[in-house]
Amino acid sequence: MALLVQKYGGTSVGSIERIEIVAKKVKAARDAGDDIVVVVSAMSGETNRLVGLASEITDNPAPRELDVLLSTGEQVTIALLSMALEKLGCPARSYTGSQVHILTDSAHNKARIKDIDGARMHEDLQLGRVVVVAGFQGVDEHGNITTLGRGGSDTTAVALAAALNADECQIYTDVDGVYTTDPRLVPKARKLERITFEEMLEMASLGSKVLQIRSVEFAGKYAVPLRVLSSFEPGEGTLITLEEEGMEQAVISGIAFNRDEAKLTILGVPDQPGVASKILGPIANANIEVDMIIQNIAEDATTDFTFTVHRNDYDRAMYVLNETAEELGAREVAGDNKIIKISLVGVGMRSHAGIASTMFKALADEGINIRMISTSEIKVSVVVDEKYLELGVRALHEAFELDKKPAA
Amino acid sequence: MALLVQKYGGTSVGSIERIEIVAKKVKAARDAGDDIVVVVSAMSGETNRLVGLASEITDNPAPRELDVLLSTGEQVTIALLSMALEKLGCPARSYTGSQVHILTDSAHNKARIKDIDGARMHEDLQLGRVVVVAGFQGVDEHGNITTLGRGGSDTTAVALAAALNADECQIYTDVDGVYTTDPRLVPKARKLERITFEEMLEMASLGSKVLQIRSVEFAGKYAVPLRVLSSFEPGEGTLITLEEEGMEQAVISGIAFNRDEAKLTILGVPDQPGVASKILGPIANANIEVDMIIQNIAEDATTDFTFTVHRNDYDRAMYVLNETAEELGAREVAGDNKIIKISLVGVGMRSHAGIASTMFKALADEGINIRMISTSEIKVSVVVDEKYLELGVRALHEAFELDKKPAA
Repeated sequence: MALLVQKYGGTSVGSIERIEIVAKKVKAARDAGDDIVVVVSAMSGETNRLVGLASEITDNPAPRELDVLLSTGEQVTIALLSMALEKLGCPARSYTGSQVHILTDSAHNKARIKDIDGARMHEDLQLGRVVVVAGFQGVDEHGNITTLGRGGSDTTAVALAAALNADECQIYTDVDGVYTTDPRLVPKARKLERITFEEMLEMASLGSKVLQIRSVEFAGKYAVPLRVLSSFEPGEGTLITLEEEGMEQAVISGIAFNRDEAKLTILGVPDQPGVASKILGPIANANIEVDMIIQNIAEDATTDFTFTVHRNDYDRAMYVLNETAEELGAREVAGDNKIIKISLVGVGMRSHAGIASTMFKALADEGINIRMISTSEIKVSVVVDEKYLELGVRALHEAFELDKKPAA
Repeated sequence: MALLVQKYGGTSVGSIERIEIVAKKVKAARDAGDDIVVVVSAMSGETNRLVGLASEITDNPAPRELDVLLSTGEQVTIALLSMALEKLGCPARSYTGSQVHILTDSAHNKARIKDIDGARMHEDLQLGRVVVVAGFQGVDEHGNITTLGRGGSDTTAVALAAALNADECQIYTDVDGVYTTDPRLVPKARKLERITFEEMLEMASLGSKVLQIRSVEFAGKYAVPLRVLSSFEPGEGTLITLEEEGMEQAVISGIAFNRDEAKLTILGVPDQPGVASKILGPIANANIEVDMIIQNIAEDATTDFTFTVHRNDYDRAMYVLNETAEELGAREVAGDNKIIKISLVGVGMRSHAGIASTMFKALADEGINIRMISTSEIKVSVVVDEKYLELGVRALHEAFELDKKPAA
């Protein structure tokens, strides 16, 4: 008998009909002998409706009150799902974040979970009840209602799984697992049976938006096995776990990409200690997030410095960088907002040489010019012109034979 | 500086526009120097929407889960009103019933308030904040969310006023006060400046549905001055208080009536001890509420027994009574479901003789036949044919000169 935490998102509970389908799935899992804790989001559309009400009053609602408002969305779902379960003869108890003491800090609208008291839930489980918990919300030490920010229900599920020492945290979504790359781009993309937390983090942060990054970090930190699977279709989904000895492991797990990149370069900066922070400090102060950073030393004791930002921040970043260039006496500033990033991700890279050169050759064979390169332990990223996105991803998927299941 | 508890019902907060009007009224009261605690209901229509969602799942939702569901209605309103207040520069804090420890028993859907912890609210008031509390809801000793049943927000307001030792509890509604009788029936009906708790109870239970009966009982018990006034029109409304020495007091305060009466009579029952309970026991067992009860001794050692019920219960009551008549060997059963009840209400009756005879004469002068009479310390009720409702009420309003303000 296992203890499973199952999380169903807004689309999965988007109507009474769908809530009843979820109830049947939950009951089936319980009838199979497992203890079940369910975490649910607000019914799809409900959070937007509530935000709409607030915005009729003000563009700047008091953050504390916005949390009081938004937390009702999940509260409605937990009550309805519990009713649906009881109707099926499956005893159930609903709990708000506050009721099971999901203690958070006081950062309203983006609170972080500090602690969870599992006692009451364990009690219910022992009495044979399904426990239904509102995702996305908690309570601070003063008893104020907090929310974890949008998508935070995944984090609630993982945190509950960790606190209850669950055997698995199952995230039900509208996709049936994690793929080697986006199947809309590469029809031969293959669903992965397993992937490590680290790989998932690289995949997620690069645009495969299956799971909230924070929830994956959390799951990795507490070693909670995480499974992504479909609310609507049968299947085992993808299991996200720690890297295991002897685990069937491909060298490359997948290819992630990011469409919304832009790059900026400052050329001919007199090279001196601290120049990087002088360039990036003002960018950070303007609240612009920087992704890749590359610095080359030129021969004339000046340096060239390139970084990428989100395409939406390009104009602002360019303005800031021009001011910095003047101050530092740089030669010129250049930029390009028609670029994209493609990344190979895989823990197998650690023990396999030659991944990068295979990657560069595959791209070169298609005549794709690489504009930037950045590497980490389990990832190689390249920046190329945006017109090469599909061609590049498909070429790499083919070159690394990702459509084929790796040999054990 | 006074401490006021103000309660706004569902119609008063039925749209964002109306919530902003309420915010302005609350701010004005606070700017006038008073401390304000506001109790709000769910936006009109919201509770029905939530009940509708539940009824799509089941006709018998788990009572505990129904409370979790319904309590979100008021939670939305407290958040929106607090946002509207803060937008006006008026600091505010919202609280669910659970957050200010409105402790109730565990009778879900119809819980009763046992205790309230005023500490946190006093703290906020001292910091200059308006405190906004969700009506209709509380929490039991196990931390489960409870609701007080429909209309329970009035009770919340009174209970808060008692717990906080407030100077006045103001109930804002869609009427501007308590009238001598229904102004739609008698255009000359006069708004009362004051009325006692006892009179208000008699008026309310007889159909002048301005306030929840329970809230008036509660206010009387804790001697909380209660004021009924309009959310939409200016005016002082009607103050409901304890009877005071030297208080300007009419003999009769008002005329209440009830359209939905039906009467049943069992004739020629052999008179013996316990006959009343043998007749009414089965009626009570059928969950039918009985209002007036009259018993006459006939000369042949049998008795006639008459009682009234709500018109909706007439057919069921008649069925039950016929069975009882057979068992008891009664002569016959009769009934009439085209009757109504008119009641004179006034604490002044206690010290004034002749009220009943003036009443009966006024009705006789209009040719109205009285079918039943029942009296209490502060009330005289008569049952008449339903066609005499308007005529009877107007005749009595005239006879007791209720359109004129009584002399001090």
